[in-house]
Amino acid sequence: MAVDVVKRCRATARLDLADHDPRETFGWDKEAAKLELDEVMGEVDALQTRLFAAEEHAVLVVLQAMDAGGKDGTIRTVMRYLNPAGVDVNAFGVPSDEERAHDYLWRVHHHAPTKGTIGVFNRSHYEDVLVVRVKEFVPEGVWRRRYRHIREFERMLTDEGTHVVKLFLNMSADEQRDRMQDRIDDPTERWKFRMGDLDDRAQWDQYQAAFRDALRETSTSSAPWYVVPADRKWVRNLVVAKILLHHLRAIDPQLPPSEEGLDGLVIP
Amino acid sequence: MAVDVVKRCRATARLDLADHDPRETFGWDKEAAKLELDEVMGEVDALQTRLFAAEEHAVLVVLQAMDAGGKDGTIRTVMRYLNPAGVDVNAFGVPSDEERAHDYLWRVHHHAPTKGTIGVFNRSHYEDVLVVRVKEFVPEGVWRRRYRHIREFERMLTDEGTHVVKLFLNMSADEQRDRMQDRIDDPTERWKFRMGDLDDRAQWDQYQAAFRDALRETSTSSAPWYVVPADRKWVRNLVVAKILLHHLRAIDPQLPPSEEGLDGLVIP
Repeated sequence: MAVDVVKRCRATARLDLADHDPRETFGWDKEAAKLELDEVMGEVDALQTRLFAAEEHAVLVVLQAMDAGGKDGTIRTVMRYLNPAGVDVNAFGVPSDEERAHDYLWRVHHHAPTKGTIGVFNRSHYEDVLVVRVKEFVPEGVWRRRYRHIREFERMLTDEGTHVVKLFLNMSADEQRDRMQDRIDDPTERWKFRMGDLDDRAQWDQYQAAFRDALRETSTSSAPWYVVPADRKWVRNLVVAKILLHHLRAIDPQLPPSEEGLDGLVIP
Repeated sequence: MAVDVVKRCRATARLDLADHDPRETFGWDKEAAKLELDEVMGEVDALQTRLFAAEEHAVLVVLQAMDAGGKDGTIRTVMRYLNPAGVDVNAFGVPSDEERAHDYLWRVHHHAPTKGTIGVFNRSHYEDVLVVRVKEFVPEGVWRRRYRHIREFERMLTDEGTHVVKLFLNMSADEQRDRMQDRIDDPTERWKFRMGDLDDRAQWDQYQAAFRDALRETSTSSAPWYVVPADRKWVRNLVVAKILLHHLRAIDPQLPPSEEGLDGLVIP
């Protein structure tokens, strides 16, 4: 069952976002899904312990979504099950002067997870083919050739031991409106809202096209994209957990051998 | 009540480790303590959300202990309650060539937490007055003057907005023996054991003296050390949680103001 959902969410080179319903539930029951989240993440946790001990592989989870799409919530809710000693979360905002003085992959490469750990990118190098395209920060010729850079960069990471898992949290425009309205209406949430968020919302269709093309161009067998139904947080959380579990099982990390000569040793 | 335990664990310039029982329970009941841990960390979590949003202060938690003293377990159990987006755990092992080519504070300074986040050091610059002293890696004149460096370094961090909280997990020698034996006897734990751990154990008294002196010399009102009873994991966890809560309450972070002009705004 887990594999089925994971497969259904995987993006192909012929991706059509119209085939992916943001309100999909896979027939799950909400309360049962919350219990299953505990169970799935319990297994992920056990595999993370082995990943951390083995220090042979890393996992890089890339999170992309429109504003209010649930990137922060996914980290807060799903990644919290993990041992923080082996998790490294990085949020990529507007580049700093130093970052801007380098190529666009430099800053993300710097934060690539070390072996044994799970890195989580809240936004990523994909902004350089998303917002950069929609806002026309560079000409089309510049952003279009980046698909290849990114494919080959991720191929190198994968070849060298880092499993790359990319999650597009697929929220509907209606759901975004409701979440933004809730932010404005809730005094404890209002500080999160920026007037500029409305500009991005006004370009919803251009962003959807940019996401579609980015996913089509860079979803590879070794570094796949997943389209995660994101209008319902409880569905989103369980899908993300199942995808993590799928990839950690594929890695199947093993505990390192112990030192020689410990049989029968009695501590003085 | 919480404040009382926090106060009782605080190290002073006249610290005598004999006054701190590693098996202390403060009269707590084990099952009730586990429930209280959820409660205390729930409040810490709410304060962390504000800390993260405000981006005005950071918290640096320094963890030191003998081998098997529970540094990893404290991170896995207590820090897991926090939002991983705002937590940065760094373990300091044997210095790399690049680290060794700098002063001993360089590598820890590099990993100081950014504003809004909680940094956790699993071992730290204190190793440079602990293992370095016991193993005589440098002459006494060199490690002894480091107390002042460290006091002043932490004063600077504090003055600039980083709250420094230092936790010595105080385990008894008997408890260490039991834990090491358990590691050797459990096939899934055995890989953690290093023969070299026995050398450190053989120098238990020298380490205790080094800890006592380090705590006496560097426990200041702005960057205090706490002696956490660590033979019982459930006591250790709750004490650590109460100390975190105490310091986050003292910071009392406030949500940032929202943008102007949001009253009555309706999202299109």
